[in-house]
Amino acid sequence: MSTTPLETAAPTASTDRDADPAFALHRGGKVEVVSSVPLNNSDDLSLAYTPGVARVCTAIAEDPSLAYDYTWKSHTVAVVTDGTAVLGLGDIGPLAALPVMEGKALLFKQFGGVDAVPLCLDVIDLDELIETIARLAPGFGGINLEDISAPRCFEVERRLQERLDIPVFHDDQHGTAIVVLAALRNAARLTGRSLADLRVVVSGAGAAGIAVSKMVLEAGIGDLAIADSKGMVHLDRSDLNDQKRMFAQISNRGGHRGSFVEALRGADVLLGLSSGTVSPEAVKSMAPQSIVFAMANPTPEVHPDVAHAMGAAVVATGRSDFPNQINNVLAFPGVFKGAMAVRATRITEGMKLAASEALAGVVGDDLAADLVIPSCFDPRVAPAVADAVAAAARAEGVARL
Amino acid sequence: MSTTPLETAAPTASTDRDADPAFALHRGGKVEVVSSVPLNNSDDLSLAYTPGVARVCTAIAEDPSLAYDYTWKSHTVAVVTDGTAVLGLGDIGPLAALPVMEGKALLFKQFGGVDAVPLCLDVIDLDELIETIARLAPGFGGINLEDISAPRCFEVERRLQERLDIPVFHDDQHGTAIVVLAALRNAARLTGRSLADLRVVVSGAGAAGIAVSKMVLEAGIGDLAIADSKGMVHLDRSDLNDQKRMFAQISNRGGHRGSFVEALRGADVLLGLSSGTVSPEAVKSMAPQSIVFAMANPTPEVHPDVAHAMGAAVVATGRSDFPNQINNVLAFPGVFKGAMAVRATRITEGMKLAASEALAGVVGDDLAADLVIPSCFDPRVAPAVADAVAAAARAEGVARL
Repeated sequence: MSTTPLETAAPTASTDRDADPAFALHRGGKVEVVSSVPLNNSDDLSLAYTPGVARVCTAIAEDPSLAYDYTWKSHTVAVVTDGTAVLGLGDIGPLAALPVMEGKALLFKQFGGVDAVPLCLDVIDLDELIETIARLAPGFGGINLEDISAPRCFEVERRLQERLDIPVFHDDQHGTAIVVLAALRNAARLTGRSLADLRVVVSGAGAAGIAVSKMVLEAGIGDLAIADSKGMVHLDRSDLNDQKRMFAQISNRGGHRGSFVEALRGADVLLGLSSGTVSPEAVKSMAPQSIVFAMANPTPEVHPDVAHAMGAAVVATGRSDFPNQINNVLAFPGVFKGAMAVRATRITEGMKLAASEALAGVVGDDLAADLVIPSCFDPRVAPAVADAVAAAARAEGVARL
Repeated sequence: MSTTPLETAAPTASTDRDADPAFALHRGGKVEVVSSVPLNNSDDLSLAYTPGVARVCTAIAEDPSLAYDYTWKSHTVAVVTDGTAVLGLGDIGPLAALPVMEGKALLFKQFGGVDAVPLCLDVIDLDELIETIARLAPGFGGINLEDISAPRCFEVERRLQERLDIPVFHDDQHGTAIVVLAALRNAARLTGRSLADLRVVVSGAGAAGIAVSKMVLEAGIGDLAIADSKGMVHLDRSDLNDQKRMFAQISNRGGHRGSFVEALRGADVLLGLSSGTVSPEAVKSMAPQSIVFAMANPTPEVHPDVAHAMGAAVVATGRSDFPNQINNVLAFPGVFKGAMAVRATRITEGMKLAASEALAGVVGDDLAADLVIPSCFDPRVAPAVADAVAAAARAEGVARL
């Protein structure tokens, strides 16, 4: 027996707002919780609930690892936000962030077969936010942090991962980094260069900018320098926060100290992760066969047609209506699918690099200027990423299976 | 496109444990999170996720009430525990409690069409537990507290309800109370008496015992006295906690001060909500046409056959293999379904009484000694309870719709 769905939508009439198809689609929300076992009679009930469930509880109390076998923990992540940095909208609070978290849950299931629970937390203090997430963690196999403002997000992730024995992954940082590096690998291959040949300038020193830059450096890029709103980040600046200062120590070997536009002159790669704009002339000043990833949303730092006209060999954006969409849905479903398949305790740098390589590899012989990264609807993506992540987890000794 | 489910169960072989059908059923867990909107191409993605989702977020940031229209909030509750009083197993911790919370989510959906998210919190301190639940509340339309130890559960519920504008409902208390009162109403009707004619003795002064007793008193019972492990609760005892002391002030007009067995002599009703036993002789000492609800699980305080042999006119237990199962799945799905349909801000005493009356009413003309409460698989139950609760919420001014 199953009752009809709750008649909650009925009392509220469709409004003019629903003429917008995004609102019409969101009516009643985007995800639901359903049963995966039968419940048709009292025999079923006595197994799924009392008295049968008590035997399962007792077994888990004696051996907590059995929770992976006999609960949803093995395939379920919490998608957690405090609503402080939602999309490009900023600090709109936890409730208004819920549609994004539901969307994330939708993507987790659709692309990775991972169950995800949107959790929007009404807490701002850093210690309290960390405590709250740690307290709700037992029932989940992983924590996907989402839309938490920088620099708070760095400490939240680090301290939670130190404390918990399940993966903690801030998707705005690492999901983006995995996809950008994959696209950059393929852009280099297409233009006959290796990562070591490339000099990169990054616009935007927020969470994504720093994470992308770190990962590109780890992958062996020639050089990379990053710009914030005050110009290039370097060690002699007195206005850097801890994160940028640490980053200044490992980047900018070229010693760029002026403006972003000056640093871009002769550079091979522009990675735009800001909300700013880049002039056609600035793109034109880059080295031949330049690579331009203009990922500001919804308006790229430079229009792809303009970038190509100014000499760019490969252009990527964050938008689905241009080729080469840098979309972290290419990463997080497969990353968690793979990590959870082997019950990983964390997501290491090696697992992220493996994910990026696997993602780049999906393009294979189809590589072209308008195909340096696969479509997120390419069904090969999540399995390839998951397999690579699971193998890396085992190789690095963080897998339980 | 949809990928296959995560292959997490595969690496762990079925064990001898799975010869127990309860373990076999629990493998991989009992609930999952699924999409309720299409996601087949980039047009769908641009509505369900960026950029379309940003318009919905912005609207909710401007008018928080829109979260009821455009997220899962209107039909989703959190099922929250700290694992301190799980079934009859006691304090087994949050992780081992997860199978029960998943079971609860299953029942919420199956019987009430309500989506429910199991949340097992690793926190013991009372203030911190309350804070944690309050922080995770924004994305939910209600909070179902579950298996939290007494007397902590009373304060958790009270303080959360004072703070939040969504229903907070401790099912172990109120769900049980609603069902017991419904069965008691029908037992009185069957034996030609009104509630005011009945003298009740309750065994067990835990969360359920106190809550049931309060509700039965509110409904106009003749008299009621409650026993804990030290005997009858009365005002001259010096060993009562706050909850029992408060309760002593409103009950036991008969002035019973001795043992439970002494108080039971001549009583009309026994409500067993302990883990103890009641002797045949004690049942025999009750008034003619006695009503015996022996709800200890898994072993009733007295076997139904024995109770009948000792003169009981109506017997109920907590078990599905005897007639008249007192099961709070008869209450909570309909209670939340009704409360959420009108976006109630809380669940009042009036709403609980209405739920109980509606539940009793489902039995109708089928009333018999072995049918004073309907089966939880009776499809009329949740709609009847929900309609009554919604109407009461409107009458009491706690409905938003």
